[in-house]
Amino acid sequence: MALTEVSSNKMFGGYQKVFSHESKEVKCTMKFGIFLPPQAENGKCPILYWLSGLTCTEQNFVTKAGAQRVAAELGFVVVAPDTSPRGCNIEGEEDGWDFGTGAGFYVNATQEKWKTNYRMYSYVTEELPALINANFPVLGDKQGIFGHSMGGHGALICALKNPGKYLSVSAFAPICNPVNCPWGKKAFSGYLGDNQEDWKEYDACCLVKKYNGPPLKILVDQGKADNFLPAGQLLPDNFVTACAEAKMELVMRMQEGYDHSYYFMATFMEDHVRHHAKFLK
Amino acid sequence: MALTEVSSNKMFGGYQKVFSHESKEVKCTMKFGIFLPPQAENGKCPILYWLSGLTCTEQNFVTKAGAQRVAAELGFVVVAPDTSPRGCNIEGEEDGWDFGTGAGFYVNATQEKWKTNYRMYSYVTEELPALINANFPVLGDKQGIFGHSMGGHGALICALKNPGKYLSVSAFAPICNPVNCPWGKKAFSGYLGDNQEDWKEYDACCLVKKYNGPPLKILVDQGKADNFLPAGQLLPDNFVTACAEAKMELVMRMQEGYDHSYYFMATFMEDHVRHHAKFLK
Repeated sequence: MALTEVSSNKMFGGYQKVFSHESKEVKCTMKFGIFLPPQAENGKCPILYWLSGLTCTEQNFVTKAGAQRVAAELGFVVVAPDTSPRGCNIEGEEDGWDFGTGAGFYVNATQEKWKTNYRMYSYVTEELPALINANFPVLGDKQGIFGHSMGGHGALICALKNPGKYLSVSAFAPICNPVNCPWGKKAFSGYLGDNQEDWKEYDACCLVKKYNGPPLKILVDQGKADNFLPAGQLLPDNFVTACAEAKMELVMRMQEGYDHSYYFMATFMEDHVRHHAKFLK
Repeated sequence: MALTEVSSNKMFGGYQKVFSHESKEVKCTMKFGIFLPPQAENGKCPILYWLSGLTCTEQNFVTKAGAQRVAAELGFVVVAPDTSPRGCNIEGEEDGWDFGTGAGFYVNATQEKWKTNYRMYSYVTEELPALINANFPVLGDKQGIFGHSMGGHGALICALKNPGKYLSVSAFAPICNPVNCPWGKKAFSGYLGDNQEDWKEYDACCLVKKYNGPPLKILVDQGKADNFLPAGQLLPDNFVTACAEAKMELVMRMQEGYDHSYYFMATFMEDHVRHHAKFLK
């Protein structure tokens, strides 16, 4: 699998790069951002995967989150993929901002129109890590995962569905219970069809109850002034309840006055990277 | 002068806001970003003015520079204006990315087409500070100024033309000697006309030789891999020479491998804010 370097910028002594490649899973050209810390010049580094939210590309995290400073200090490679296939010419893929392009929801679609390309779950858990491990100085057995909103949902399900694969997980304002929120119902019915039992395979509240792997300690930050909280899109209380029932260790921090934006994420990004460092260093 | 709040996002315990207002100097609606640190809730804070480069709006600094974290720690209000008037319907204002819209160059134009609106020098040194001092909890006598590229040029000339007004000044990859570079020649001939003696009133290398005010200590960071360096747009060597002749204290740091982007600026932003703190705290 050949990688094409799209851009490279020195930053905090390391390099923030963007690559493109032809993806076998999603059958189109995909881009990802990768921060290579200065430590990567002399040895292999742990990896953090970041999954972005609705409407994002690989650029939003790279440009706005401010994670590179702490990643450079601690010696993390940080990989930020795009949020969906692009330009697949599927009828309806551009019709909404919360379904189709920019809204892959990190699931493998089963429905006819979408199942060929919309395989973001396999892309982020299998194809992309194999590509990263083969091409960069990383410790493939030291992986953490985190994300925001739709990508927070993605981070939680990737960790919960793959016991032991990710040693650490955290999320900013994640969609915690997609089977019960408007965004999730729209996406899952479109990608996965009408059988709601199938949806549960990609729902953090459902998955945490089935989790049977090494202990995880999940960190979640949620802004109290997030518009999508009263809109019932995020449902963090349901995840608190589900984790309590499952005896999963969860720190859910409700942050007074913060909204759903990258300003919120930049504020607490250092805390999250240091949280991952407890398990990956 | 009424201010309209365009956006407000909590960040690092303070607020990143954007306001719009009707400007008397440039005779159109202008926007600026302002970061209010947590300390601004209980008292008045020193102010840092940030001047952005070609093609930027107030958004670039606010989104990408990562200054708010250190400003929140040290208690600085940070103000980032737009780089030019907008939508004035001047013939030719949209013809190039390096002249007209997004390229005000922080001068007061004297040429017929431009002189009504293109008064960015008076806007950033007089009108905007008066507006900030009247509407926000700031210490109006504790001002610093910094910027990037065209805005680095702006920061240098604002400090050098107004002895004592700005207690501190720094720049990232500034246009140091606009009378001798292609960007400067195009902008100054357009805004100021053919008499090159008039241009010298807005050239850092010329102004530093005339400076006769309180001591300044100027910090400049310049990436060695900046494309605009070999293109002869920035001419930092000329500023080093001019400062040496004028006995102006200058720290010019040539940063190996860094380019002209916000990735470069984010890397050294903390150093610059702490540089200003030496003089403003």
